[in-house]
Amino acid sequence: MTRKPRLDAAGNRRRIVAVARAAFAEEGLDLPMREIAHRAGLGVATVYRHFPTRTELVTAALAEHVAACRADMRAALDERDAWHALSGTIRRFAEHQVRDRGLNEALFGSHAAAAAFAEDRRAHARGLEQLVDRARRAGAVRAEVTADDVRVGLMAIASFRALRPERAASSTRRLVDLLLAGLSAQRR
Amino acid sequence: MTRKPRLDAAGNRRRIVAVARAAFAEEGLDLPMREIAHRAGLGVATVYRHFPTRTELVTAALAEHVAACRADMRAALDERDAWHALSGTIRRFAEHQVRDRGLNEALFGSHAAAAAFAEDRRAHARGLEQLVDRARRAGAVRAEVTADDVRVGLMAIASFRALRPERAASSTRRLVDLLLAGLSAQRR
Repeated sequence: MTRKPRLDAAGNRRRIVAVARAAFAEEGLDLPMREIAHRAGLGVATVYRHFPTRTELVTAALAEHVAACRADMRAALDERDAWHALSGTIRRFAEHQVRDRGLNEALFGSHAAAAAFAEDRRAHARGLEQLVDRARRAGAVRAEVTADDVRVGLMAIASFRALRPERAASSTRRLVDLLLAGLSAQRR
Repeated sequence: MTRKPRLDAAGNRRRIVAVARAAFAEEGLDLPMREIAHRAGLGVATVYRHFPTRTELVTAALAEHVAACRADMRAALDERDAWHALSGTIRRFAEHQVRDRGLNEALFGSHAAAAAFAEDRRAHARGLEQLVDRARRAGAVRAEVTADDVRVGLMAIASFRALRPERAASSTRRLVDLLLAGLSAQRR
């Protein structure tokens, strides 16, 4: 008995997306298409039939995660406590940073294959500005803190991705606590 | 009239050390010996005659700078104001970081060619522990701050070396201010 080609095609597509999602999270968006095909147990021609360009594969692999980040930012903007909204966003960024390299290249870098997420990147930057303004007006961060300070802090957090994984998690946690203490108007 | 070979040799040695110092500062300790010979306008055989191994060249090129760092740390340990001693050391680290990549690989990394500075590295680490302990006892840093927090901060500062130079200086300054605010027990 042979399986229907249509079902095979849909199954292959799902498998490629799942493999790409895990691979991009671990190794970033530059991973060769050939390597993704290999891990999915498929020929590279099959991968290219479903996703003629890397941009299409990246878009499919990260769509859900990027949507979740968008929802997180909307929730933060709706939050009542301005400090909790800002610090929660920074902590979530750090968690993603440790876990998902591809997502961060898509939302914060300038990777060509993440072109589909350009508007998400801009929206995230605008959201961050609003969170900082609100926290400053509420007296939750020091009066001189700007969105640039927060961006510099996020860059520093992002750099810890290069550490060995067992060290990255604990060092990132320490760095986040130190940066939040530096932003805060109060000793918490 | 021919110059005395002895004088040539001494002049060549000085020239190699000066070129290596500038090159290591800019590009780190991995720069090929061949490239250093080229920049000094000498054959690579001449460089190897003076410095048979990279370790010997690195040691000669960085000796003065490392001695200056050692003196800085001694001065910090003798300083009366515990906060000024610690924050000054962190600020000096950041300045070196932006300016001298080789020096930082020698003092804070584990580059094989910096073997001669292993004791300086340990002395610097011990000095930093003392500065943090003293600042905590003086109530200058938050009670929960440890040398690990400072080390994580220094790592974050060091990561900004990878930025484009025009961006590195201003971002590093912002990050240092943010980290010092995070360490400090007072709002400064």
